[in-house]
Amino acid sequence: MPAKHPVVIDLKFERREIDAALADAFAGRQVLRASDPRIDLSQARYAVIWKPDPNLFQRAPKLEVLFSGGAGVDYILTMPGLPDVPIVRFVDESLTTRMSEWVVLQALSHLRQVPAYLGQQRERQWRELSQPEAKDLTVGVMGLGVLGLDSVRKLKVMGFDVIGWSRSKKTIEGVETFDGGELDAFLARTDILVGLLPLTPETGGIFNASLFTKLRQGGALGKPVFINAGRGGSQVESDLVAALDSGILGGASLDVFEKEPLGADSPLWTTDNVIITPHAASASDVRALFRNAETQMERYEAGDPLQHVVDRRAGY
Amino acid sequence: MPAKHPVVIDLKFERREIDAALADAFAGRQVLRASDPRIDLSQARYAVIWKPDPNLFQRAPKLEVLFSGGAGVDYILTMPGLPDVPIVRFVDESLTTRMSEWVVLQALSHLRQVPAYLGQQRERQWRELSQPEAKDLTVGVMGLGVLGLDSVRKLKVMGFDVIGWSRSKKTIEGVETFDGGELDAFLARTDILVGLLPLTPETGGIFNASLFTKLRQGGALGKPVFINAGRGGSQVESDLVAALDSGILGGASLDVFEKEPLGADSPLWTTDNVIITPHAASASDVRALFRNAETQMERYEAGDPLQHVVDRRAGY
Ligand SMILES: NC(=O)c1ccc[n+]([C@@H]2O[C@H](COP(=O)([O-])OP(=O)(O)OC[C@H]3O[C@@H](n4cnc5c(N)ncnc54)[C@H](OP(=O)(O)O)[C@@H]3O)[C@@H](O)[C@H]2O)c1
Ligand SMILES: NC(=O)c1ccc[n+]([C@@H]2O[C@H](COP(=O)([O-])OP(=O)(O)OC[C@H]3O[C@@H](n4cnc5c(N)ncnc54)[C@H](OP(=O)(O)O)[C@@H]3O)[C@@H](O)[C@H]2O)c1
Repeated sequence: MPAKHPVVIDLKFERREIDAALADAFAGRQVLRASDPRIDLSQARYAVIWKPDPNLFQRAPKLEVLFSGGAGVDYILTMPGLPDVPIVRFVDESLTTRMSEWVVLQALSHLRQVPAYLGQQRERQWRELSQPEAKDLTVGVMGLGVLGLDSVRKLKVMGFDVIGWSRSKKTIEGVETFDGGELDAFLARTDILVGLLPLTPETGGIFNASLFTKLRQGGALGKPVFINAGRGGSQVESDLVAALDSGILGGASLDVFEKEPLGADSPLWTTDNVIITPHAASASDVRALFRNAETQMERYEAGDPLQHVVDRRAGY
Repeated sequence: MPAKHPVVIDLKFERREIDAALADAFAGRQVLRASDPRIDLSQARYAVIWKPDPNLFQRAPKLEVLFSGGAGVDYILTMPGLPDVPIVRFVDESLTTRMSEWVVLQALSHLRQVPAYLGQQRERQWRELSQPEAKDLTVGVMGLGVLGLDSVRKLKVMGFDVIGWSRSKKTIEGVETFDGGELDAFLARTDILVGLLPLTPETGGIFNASLFTKLRQGGALGKPVFINAGRGGSQVESDLVAALDSGILGGASLDVFEKEPLGADSPLWTTDNVIITPHAASASDVRALFRNAETQMERYEAGDPLQHVVDRRAGY
């Protein structure tokens, strides 16, 4: 049996959760917690990280594999001193399921006019609003990766008409798909836009004034709705606020922001028909993260190829 | 071809919607609107009704089939002078889909702590709450009819553990089911209770203090949640308010009430974690209703058996 090499942990998650998950993770493997500056990381080959300390790569110059604590890796790729080693991203059923819960919840909330009904409830007002059904609305999902594909499937089951957009063309039964070059045609069909894109040089600021004006106007909800759970760096918040104010957009659900936490002075908190969650659409389950990382380390030590390795050139 | 007999319309829906739907319904068939008291209904054989005038059966003594404008028929079965003729209830894909939209929306809203997050949003507070996932919760659906079965299927797709209860035992793949006599065992497993029952002598007041105390305590949400879109007559609202106040229930989503509209003085409007909609979970689509009724009239005139006929003894 090959040796089990130590693993560095540098995760900016809740300490309590990390402690609990470590209690029964990485059996037979030494765990080095980067949070203790006295610990020697100089010989370590693996690190499981989420927003690690900037000096991590100096303290651990012999890393051979990095494991991202989340599905997104934009925060790693921009780190100074990043070694040229494989980065494994976190892909997990529970992460995917939770994201789809959030996406379907938000799409249904706009379909069923939740903000309007909750407003009426606060006024003790009994009034039925006219109500399209799911099939009257087209949900356009941007990003058809692990998360986008699962959301597409579940939105379909709920009855929505669903279309999708990704860099390379996909074939999905019952779903019209568009590739990178067909963005405008995709947007012109979309009543509810769902962003599940990674943040890369190409997707930075993609949700801007120009894009919002290309969404379908006059659909069954009157105005298009913008839902984003990818990365805040993909949205231009001043454009978003302006589009909501001017009525180009009729509502939004946002889990991610240009700067997190979202500043208390952001008008988004109180804009009509805007639903805010604090980057909580799909938190990584730390136990699942450690299980996944251990599986990949064992593959690596057995000479098998790593899975879910980031394409550095593409940026995700 | 057999003669097309006239049809009486007595629907307490929005007049505008009825007019629009009638414009292209019942081709070749005379439409008699009961709202006009001068119209002679004495020879009519069919009536499409929703909360009809109490004198309808005097004005139309020769009715041979009644068509309910909604899925529920409790309001018909208690009408004085009700003739002993078949009652066809409204069963329609769009009605079913809309109900499942509402049920899944409410289950996800409690799973994902929507009231708590919206409260934080109002305070511009960025705080992640600890979050079970759908599979950690058991949704127990009471009523496995047309609506219940579709909700069960969609709740399963979203990842919930789902169990079901109905008078006669059902077999549903991947779903544990309980029959009429096994209510307590069903409740003891349930974290989120979904009521999709018709109102009958047996189901009147079934959601009462005793039932609420039998739901599972200490599940992944801490306390059980009650969701009802069947009929308000099945819930004892004073018991419901008390169970919410005392913490036996952790929340509720209610579309139906003992008395509708819900009185402005009801404490339910403002109870924490209670979501109220004005009997709008699944409004009948009037066009679909007329299409369905026409189909059944044609079957009847061709000598074929009517479908979706109410079992008067069972009361639904
Ligand atoms: N809010 C949260 O709680 C949360 C949680 C987890 C993840 N996330 C975010 O969700 C993102 C997506 O996760 P995932 O696991 O689904 O990623 P993934 O499997 O890598 O999929 C990414 C998708 O985006 C598409 N894409 C990337 N760049 C594109 C471009 N320039 N133009 C068009 N399409 C492009 C890809 O196209 P191809 O299919 O052609 O490659 C792919 O379909 C993550 O990167 C992360 O930022 C957020
Ligand atoms: N809020 C709204 O907007 C809205 C809209 C439409 C309908 N509804 C309500 O939803 C109700 C259900 O509609 P549906 O179309 O699903 O009705 P359905 O097809 O007749 O199904 C009724 C279900 O309830 C079960 N049931 C009836 N009495 C029972 C009892 N005493 N004990 C245990 N189970 C019992 C039946 O059991 P069996 O399978 O053994 O017969 C059946 O599974 C309607 O009656 C209506 O009141 C509300």
